[in-house]
Amino acid sequence: MNILDETISAIAPQDAAWRQRAKDRLDQLTMPHWALGRLMDLSMDLAGMTRCLRPLTRRKVVVVMAADHGVVAEGVSKYPQEVTRQMVLNFVNRGAGINALAGQAGATVCVVDMGVAGEVGELARSGAVLSMPVGPGTGNMAQGPAMTREQAAQSVENGIRVARRLADDGYDLFGVGEMGIGNTTPSSAIIATLTGRAVSDVTGRGTGLDDGQLEHKIAVIERALKVNEPDPQDGLDVLAKVGGFEIGGIAGVILGAAALRKPIVIDGLISTAGALIAQALAPAAADYMIAAHRSMEPGHIVALQHLGKEPLLDLDLRLGEGTGAALAMNLVEAAARILIGVRTFEEARVSVAVE
Amino acid sequence: MNILDETISAIAPQDAAWRQRAKDRLDQLTMPHWALGRLMDLSMDLAGMTRCLRPLTRRKVVVVMAADHGVVAEGVSKYPQEVTRQMVLNFVNRGAGINALAGQAGATVCVVDMGVAGEVGELARSGAVLSMPVGPGTGNMAQGPAMTREQAAQSVENGIRVARRLADDGYDLFGVGEMGIGNTTPSSAIIATLTGRAVSDVTGRGTGLDDGQLEHKIAVIERALKVNEPDPQDGLDVLAKVGGFEIGGIAGVILGAAALRKPIVIDGLISTAGALIAQALAPAAADYMIAAHRSMEPGHIVALQHLGKEPLLDLDLRLGEGTGAALAMNLVEAAARILIGVRTFEEARVSVAVE
Repeated sequence: MNILDETISAIAPQDAAWRQRAKDRLDQLTMPHWALGRLMDLSMDLAGMTRCLRPLTRRKVVVVMAADHGVVAEGVSKYPQEVTRQMVLNFVNRGAGINALAGQAGATVCVVDMGVAGEVGELARSGAVLSMPVGPGTGNMAQGPAMTREQAAQSVENGIRVARRLADDGYDLFGVGEMGIGNTTPSSAIIATLTGRAVSDVTGRGTGLDDGQLEHKIAVIERALKVNEPDPQDGLDVLAKVGGFEIGGIAGVILGAAALRKPIVIDGLISTAGALIAQALAPAAADYMIAAHRSMEPGHIVALQHLGKEPLLDLDLRLGEGTGAALAMNLVEAAARILIGVRTFEEARVSVAVE
Repeated sequence: MNILDETISAIAPQDAAWRQRAKDRLDQLTMPHWALGRLMDLSMDLAGMTRCLRPLTRRKVVVVMAADHGVVAEGVSKYPQEVTRQMVLNFVNRGAGINALAGQAGATVCVVDMGVAGEVGELARSGAVLSMPVGPGTGNMAQGPAMTREQAAQSVENGIRVARRLADDGYDLFGVGEMGIGNTTPSSAIIATLTGRAVSDVTGRGTGLDDGQLEHKIAVIERALKVNEPDPQDGLDVLAKVGGFEIGGIAGVILGAAALRKPIVIDGLISTAGALIAQALAPAAADYMIAAHRSMEPGHIVALQHLGKEPLLDLDLRLGEGTGAALAMNLVEAAARILIGVRTFEEARVSVAVE
């Protein structure tokens, strides 16, 4: 069996018995019933994922998948393509948003070259970037498939390998983010395909398009879907025709983490498009996903609804890079600590409510 | 001049020039414009509060003010009064919700006895609790004033002393929380008085009242307001007539922090009632307040609107103790790190958007 099929077959839903054990304990903690609200729901999720009442979340890593997109030839972004490579350098030099926020959360940033156009070889040789390029950027999906089916499988498998390596390095809590000029365009195409919604419902302004540019972006995505006819029943087909190498990588990290029963925090629009691909390949993988935040992109909300996820934060973020995931990791660790650290009424000898 | 007047006169609004300097830098960071949304608004606030582009937020403390309330004689809480003292013990033994969440955020928990009924002297002697009791619990506000005007001033001044001491100990970022069986009742009374809203609009289920118990709680608060006639133009009068010692202490910590130009994170309903008292005494103090979360209590939202604050988190919390403040401290530190750690396009040599 190949690594992709092997991983998919290893993914089981959250464990109902461990969820119940967690609930039994949470019901008795020294506080009014369920007074920590959604954090306690998350505590139950962590128990269900990890099969444990003391879920590990302290060693955190945000995987930032980077790649380029042929569809930028259609003029769908305000930034030149070289910014993808420049931002990879910025990540390595610890000068970007994700470095600041991961630093706050105590999370390591793991940058992966999944297919950046231009030279990043020196960084890879120095070990600052994991080098797993599937190609030097995708093809222009407005004219044909973004990649071959083999490349789609390879991008997902590379993501699985990253998750396995990081788990071997001792990381407990995963996050996913990305960098790739133009990548809100394939993300909206994926979301439209897998949710069945109209392109105009799931396409936003990305890095700051005006009304005319947004209209053009919608037309490009509609053309890509017409040219390629991705099959919504086949996650790899969708990824190959209208996806991106970093989006496949994100799907792979999610599948790899889910197979290892590790929680994984999903960032914004692009990461959630990767999460939809992962769900299409292995529906139970959604049980290990934690939605970090509600971004400004309309497609993000649609995608989260399709996954059945309520995001933890709502702070008008629209950066990507994994920044929202890094912020939300604090809340995930807090949920674990409620289960581990708070005493029950009996343990703490506190009087219970009079009913 | 006494410590209260001295502190009030030292409180100045946020500095507009430092806010602008922060904005000038944030506008140039290596990301689409204002892509970290409300966190960047908070970065500007921190610069305006601290008069600095590298605001300190790493050394964090959550002050948990504890006291008892005579109004519990009216049957407004499901829990017996002895739970206040038991929970103080739980805080000291590190077994409560606030210990778990402050631990996650890297914040110290500072427990203050502002007037707990029953014996906590031993804890005070051991140094585990700061001992500043104004009295052994307040009087029953449904029958007369909760405390004298002198006690109200003393409770606020004690809070100011706590803030000064903690600042001397090197803490940069403050949070406030509380413990006091029955204290949602005076909090709703304060909020109704200072916002002019009906008691029924600002009164909730506290630790879990049913419909009949909620109706009774509203009637008790209405009676307290009728008996005492607190003057909404006079913050100390409101605190004295329908407040609590820990609520005055919270107001004092806020005033003390604001006078020292330190940001202070406000927790839920009771802490926000304390924040309203602080605002009534010194309107500019609101410039140093950061609203942690939107709690389940209806009066909390009304009070936040009155302060002009949008909360950072919305997680169905209704515990108090400072738990929401502890969670939000991570976001405050993240906002500071955006200002300190993220490079500009020029510094990082990243190409800017094509307009």
